[in-house]
Amino acid sequence: MAFTTNATIASFGGKLLKLSHEAKSTSCKMALNLYLPPQAFQAQKTTSKVPVLFYLSGLTCTGDNCSEKGFFQHKASEKGIAVVYPDTSPRGLNIQGEDDAYDFGSGAGFYVDATKEPYNKGYNMYTYITKELPETLFKEFDVLDGNRVSITGHSMGGHGALTLFLKNPGMYKSCSAFAPISNPINCPWGQKAFKGYFGEENQGKWKEHDATELVKQWKGHLHLLIDVGTGDNFYKQGQLLPENFLAAAKEAGNDKDIRLRFQQDYDHSYYFMATFADDHVEHAAKALFA
Amino acid sequence: MAFTTNATIASFGGKLLKLSHEAKSTSCKMALNLYLPPQAFQAQKTTSKVPVLFYLSGLTCTGDNCSEKGFFQHKASEKGIAVVYPDTSPRGLNIQGEDDAYDFGSGAGFYVDATKEPYNKGYNMYTYITKELPETLFKEFDVLDGNRVSITGHSMGGHGALTLFLKNPGMYKSCSAFAPISNPINCPWGQKAFKGYFGEENQGKWKEHDATELVKQWKGHLHLLIDVGTGDNFYKQGQLLPENFLAAAKEAGNDKDIRLRFQQDYDHSYYFMATFADDHVEHAAKALFA
Repeated sequence: MAFTTNATIASFGGKLLKLSHEAKSTSCKMALNLYLPPQAFQAQKTTSKVPVLFYLSGLTCTGDNCSEKGFFQHKASEKGIAVVYPDTSPRGLNIQGEDDAYDFGSGAGFYVDATKEPYNKGYNMYTYITKELPETLFKEFDVLDGNRVSITGHSMGGHGALTLFLKNPGMYKSCSAFAPISNPINCPWGQKAFKGYFGEENQGKWKEHDATELVKQWKGHLHLLIDVGTGDNFYKQGQLLPENFLAAAKEAGNDKDIRLRFQQDYDHSYYFMATFADDHVEHAAKALFA
Repeated sequence: MAFTTNATIASFGGKLLKLSHEAKSTSCKMALNLYLPPQAFQAQKTTSKVPVLFYLSGLTCTGDNCSEKGFFQHKASEKGIAVVYPDTSPRGLNIQGEDDAYDFGSGAGFYVDATKEPYNKGYNMYTYITKELPETLFKEFDVLDGNRVSITGHSMGGHGALTLFLKNPGMYKSCSAFAPISNPINCPWGQKAFKGYFGEENQGKWKEHDATELVKQWKGHLHLLIDVGTGDNFYKQGQLLPENFLAAAKEAGNDKDIRLRFQQDYDHSYYFMATFADDHVEHAAKALFA
């Protein structure tokens, strides 16, 4: 058993498992939540499997925030989709300064593999999310269908969802995002993170993890759902830049099936997420059950 | 303007207002949340009003917990019901010891008017919830229909919902509860609170705020929805005693339309609440729109 089950909580007819495991890629114990919909328990009897939606959280969050406030379980329960809520960084690596800022270090892994000392010691959330975590999960939980996986996320996690999707064609059946950091190389949050994880000089690496850069290279059909609130202060401050992403997609001829919705008055909080969570699970369901 | 609006947050098509006001009954500034569904904004134009659901929180909570995690806005938005999330006690009265325990004093007002020194200085949540708050709200917010009000609550707030409903025939169109403290005079939480707020000798007062005692006196039809999780540790510890309530109702011939549902494996948390919030709003809606 790779995972320890620290709690099992009934939720919307299924079970939310609070798990932890020793992860190699991040050099530490990682916590996550796994929501198994009611169909997962029926599936165990019939040997069919349920598809999986990875939800990547934003700055400062753990897997708990969205499990409690995001209401993904509501529609995931109805559709029969498992939801994985990973943490946002390694924890407790004892790197000097890693806990000093809300937007860098712990709680702010940015879904990259750091190349710069000292963060290259374990800040490898890219490998953790795309390889180690799914491989370990799908090995231990037979009921999860590793061939039907989608991805979504919020803010820094929206950046994660978009970049992991765009860097790995075929790995995810669909992608959506809430208020994603869409062009990190051109916003303060992204610049700070990439400087710290890659170094200032390593601009090639920066571009490899920038959704707006990646979408220019995308080949084939691109069907995305992106929601941004017009009352989101981080949007107003230029941290999100979804227009840059859309413009780049348009220039590359890939924008036709990107639904970028500006939601009147909504902010950056889980109140916003909860309101549109059903739509994002529906978006994933269409691809996962196609 | 009796209320200060500290924040306005878009949620499920409506707005959650974070309000505060100087309350006479509790001798302090009280915070609360008011969810206005989308229909409230349409109603302002047509001069029709929306009905109101009071949600009473449990021990340690403020109005924020359920606003963020309870999922009531989901169905309230659809039905066109405003939701009021009050605080659970006065705050900052500087009574010695009021912040020492999670289950007495601040965060634990138990929806009674304290008669015992020193808590009689402001621990008057009964008067606050049944009189001052609704009167002040309905005066300031024209869009709220003071003639169509329902009540619900969780744990200590479930006790509050049941007792306020049973003590005030006609005041509330309907009542429901999640994991209510149903017989406080016979459980440790209730005994501690009533001893502190009323005194050990004042058993008459104790009974006046005990749902199981009150239901014996109820005249007429009684239509209640009560959910309790079988995995709820407080239920297992005998803090809730819903069976006592049901037995008393039965003895009085009032149990026919009480739906006491035991929900398999659910605990005492907001995961439980969120799962069944839709049902409780539906229960209220049937009465509010009858």
